Amino acid sequence: MSTLKELAALVGGELIGNPRLEISGVSEIQNGKPGTITFLANPRYKKYLNDTKAAAVFTNDRNLLKEQAGIVVDNPQMALAIILKYFQSAVPRPEGIHPTAIVDPTAEIGENVSIGPYSIIAAGAQIGSGTTIGAHTVIGYNTEIGTDSQLYPRVVIYHDCRIGDRVLIHSGTVIGCDGFGFVTIDDIHHKIPQTGRVTIGHDVELGANCTIDRGTIGDTQIGAGSKFDNLVHVAHNVKIGKGCLVAGEVGFAGSAVIGDYCIFAGQVGVAPHLEVGDRAICAAKTGVTKSIPGGKVYAGMPVREIREQNKRDAVLTAVALLKKRLLKLEEKVIAPHLAKDE
Amino acid sequence: MSTLKELAALVGGELIGNPRLEISGVSEIQNGKPGTITFLANPRYKKYLNDTKAAAVFTNDRNLLKEQAGIVVDNPQMALAIILKYFQSAVPRPEGIHPTAIVDPTAEIGENVSIGPYSIIAAGAQIGSGTTIGAHTVIGYNTEIGTDSQLYPRVVIYHDCRIGDRVLIHSGTVIGCDGFGFVTIDDIHHKIPQTGRVTIGHDVELGANCTIDRGTIGDTQIGAGSKFDNLVHVAHNVKIGKGCLVAGEVGFAGSAVIGDYCIFAGQVGVAPHLEVGDRAICAAKTGVTKSIPGGKVYAGMPVREIREQNKRDAVLTAVALLKKRLLKLEEKVIAPHLAKDE
Amino acid sequence: MSTLKELAALVGGELIGNPRLEISGVSEIQNGKPGTITFLANPRYKKYLNDTKAAAVFTNDRNLLKEQAGIVVDNPQMALAIILKYFQSAVPRPEGIHPTAIVDPTAEIGENVSIGPYSIIAAGAQIGSGTTIGAHTVIGYNTEIGTDSQLYPRVVIYHDCRIGDRVLIHSGTVIGCDGFGFVTIDDIHHKIPQTGRVTIGHDVELGANCTIDRGTIGDTQIGAGSKFDNLVHVAHNVKIGKGCLVAGEVGFAGSAVIGDYCIFAGQVGVAPHLEVGDRAICAAKTGVTKSIPGGKVYAGMPVREIREQNKRDAVLTAVALLKKRLLKLEEKVIAPHLAKDE
Repeated sequence: MSTLKELAALVGGELIGNPRLEISGVSEIQNGKPGTITFLANPRYKKYLNDTKAAAVFTNDRNLLKEQAGIVVDNPQMALAIILKYFQSAVPRPEGIHPTAIVDPTAEIGENVSIGPYSIIAAGAQIGSGTTIGAHTVIGYNTEIGTDSQLYPRVVIYHDCRIGDRVLIHSGTVIGCDGFGFVTIDDIHHKIPQTGRVTIGHDVELGANCTIDRGTIGDTQIGAGSKFDNLVHVAHNVKIGKGCLVAGEVGFAGSAVIGDYCIFAGQVGVAPHLEVGDRAICAAKTGVTKSIPGGKVYAGMPVREIREQNKRDAVLTAVALLKKRLLKLEEKVIAPHLAKDE
Repeated sequence: MSTLKELAALVGGELIGNPRLEISGVSEIQNGKPGTITFLANPRYKKYLNDTKAAAVFTNDRNLLKEQAGIVVDNPQMALAIILKYFQSAVPRPEGIHPTAIVDPTAEIGENVSIGPYSIIAAGAQIGSGTTIGAHTVIGYNTEIGTDSQLYPRVVIYHDCRIGDRVLIHSGTVIGCDGFGFVTIDDIHHKIPQTGRVTIGHDVELGANCTIDRGTIGDTQIGAGSKFDNLVHVAHNVKIGKGCLVAGEVGFAGSAVIGDYCIFAGQVGVAPHLEVGDRAICAAKTGVTKSIPGGKVYAGMPVREIREQNKRDAVLTAVALLKKRLLKLEEKVIAPHLAKDE
Repeated sequence: MSTLKELAALVGGELIGNPRLEISGVSEIQNGKPGTITFLANPRYKKYLNDTKAAAVFTNDRNLLKEQAGIVVDNPQMALAIILKYFQSAVPRPEGIHPTAIVDPTAEIGENVSIGPYSIIAAGAQIGSGTTIGAHTVIGYNTEIGTDSQLYPRVVIYHDCRIGDRVLIHSGTVIGCDGFGFVTIDDIHHKIPQTGRVTIGHDVELGANCTIDRGTIGDTQIGAGSKFDNLVHVAHNVKIGKGCLVAGEVGFAGSAVIGDYCIFAGQVGVAPHLEVGDRAICAAKTGVTKSIPGGKVYAGMPVREIREQNKRDAVLTAVALLKKRLLKLEEKVIAPHLAKDE
């Protein structure tokens, strides 16, 4: 329980209303709960503002707070992140190495590492200090994990991978599995050994049930600060830059090279051996079938700049309407008995 | 082994042929096996009817059973469901809590609960009576599971989730992982804590390797009676209604609100913050890019009513044919030497 | 460490340059490392040839090796596969059955089988000689696995499945989970028991986090020599032929029948009950909405032959350009004050 004044100080915002108003937590604006603070970041939710039962609101628009108490901040989402962390109730972190964990004597385990039940740390592995390894996790031969990282239960990392510091990996994600590489001779697909590694930079987050293939020769790489949603597939030899955002069910085919600070919305696919420039943005379901320069917004399959894609969509609408108008015209003027196929 | 008469009674159908015909099981119509009963529900498979080696057929069309024995029912698929259950050979269910399972002393375990080897039930968790927890499953802190539910091996449910009664969850599915929420300031993606829960209603089925993110503040919800295929992704704050059918590899982006009894075919994607009305149907690969009213059938990317989508497809066909006809005409009449680009 | 001469003999290629050149491993052409051999198979990477620091190159074009040492082979990728295997450093394979593995006394375990920690082999299961079962793997009741297969950690195979010889299955893959089969009566979805099996032929490889549903009555089948990438979904009753290549995030809906030697690029979807002929190739994101003959290349949603799909794309471009030209013309000639909507 905190006062509105305390929360305003916490986020560096301007207080509107009673400073001693007591706030017990955070609620959604459309399901606002008495005694809590809510937030308005996406204008789509403005319609709920007047009727919300929340006691106060984070907003960047002081004019919205005529009737309501709240806190004016530049970035309501950042304020939300701070306040959620402040109110978050801790899930207990087990201390030390659980007696059922199997840790090879040659593995190097840092200070204050937590290793959950039934986890397996193979020979030569290194786990940096402060890192949490969830239950049922398998860390392969010679794999290294940095400091203060967190692996949720049931992550698998194959041998010889490199994971940075402060990396967060959700359950079910598999790192270092074989790339999809075959040479076909006389209808037999011969396996190309996948002898490279996966390297994942600092501050990366990977969602649940992702798959990150190891490189064939060199490394599959994910740059520092990149964040992945669930069920993302990264094929062998892919290089992903720094600070990228990758939404759910995106797939990167083999040897694609992705710049820094790119954004991929849900279900995008990138074809093999292509280059995507820095700060490129791909709308949902984009099929990246050729290399694309950075700094632009793309959509469609095959990929085009989104403006062009939208124009093509509009042209087809126009042609379809034209046909309709033509048929109506024919019906009226020339041959009404023939214009029945609509 | 049962007689055709007994099976007809079981499904409440009309017997055609020898009532004492003995039936030992069920087979597919295209791979019909002597001594078994098959079924004809999808007209696509009618071509196999005359040659099937099965001894009898479920059908809703009495006229098809002139030469063959069978059972006439209103709904051959429902009859199939009943008969398959009747003939199904049981897989043994281990009794009680396996000695290798780690159950926190504060967890509440109901009567007749089965907990498989190496499973982990965290502090404060509750498992309702009659529920089966497969091997290698992890149930998080304070999570509650109802009665008579079944979790296949290797499910992970994070802390503070709520799972209903008679829920079926297949292997590899992860529930309650963090939503994909970040605030970006100066190219740094700051994590928004995901402090909500997942609530799953009664009689829900989730396929294998699905991922259901927890809410940011409120809950991610899946309504009673909804059924999900494999590899489905549900982002944070999504609300899915009752009785929905969701096919494989579908993805729901954050805060989407889905009505009751909707159907999503394979690989559909729904963009964030949208509303899909009750009983909307989306064809495979639909990209739901705007809110759509219920009770209609949709397709395409961007989403349109399927009739409109099909018309647009036809218009493009017409324009392409027009070009072809024009080129042929030019070749014949005006400038045959110029019309070589086809 | 080997000489170039020894490597040339190993792959049956023609040596160009100093036969005593010592080679310590393999590197990528764009990140060539001194003392290693690289390869040039995809012309896309030819631009790196002159500047690579690698000491030698596999190529099928003798003319490229004027300044550089190398080995001329018919198939540089096959040479690569051989050489990578030659230089691959072994990951230790644990011998025998780990004491924490739970193997039912009725299970039959062949000679020289390795079973990792915490794995579970249910009653009636059979594991063929030489097979490796990774940690945390669950093999269901009566399931049979052939000889010399390898399951990476954390595979789940449900009861009554059949896996061939020399099969490779990556982590997180689930085999034999229930198909998505329901009969809907009065808005209630009644489950159709899924009583069939999964049968997987010899020499199949399945990537990570795939899901292969069991058949409803008969079997879901994957033919010998087929290779799957990660996150592939195979629904109930699907029959996939021999030697198919299936890229990441592809989905096959129920009862689809796929011929031999087909290729499916990333994120393709195949609708239920369709037939795909032998040696059909589907480009990325194809939506196979009808049965398609073999031996052709397809693309688009709905599916068309790729030539037709490309023509349709070009027609739309042409129409869009036409509009642009028309608007420019109008601007110049007829009504410049009206042509402002571009």
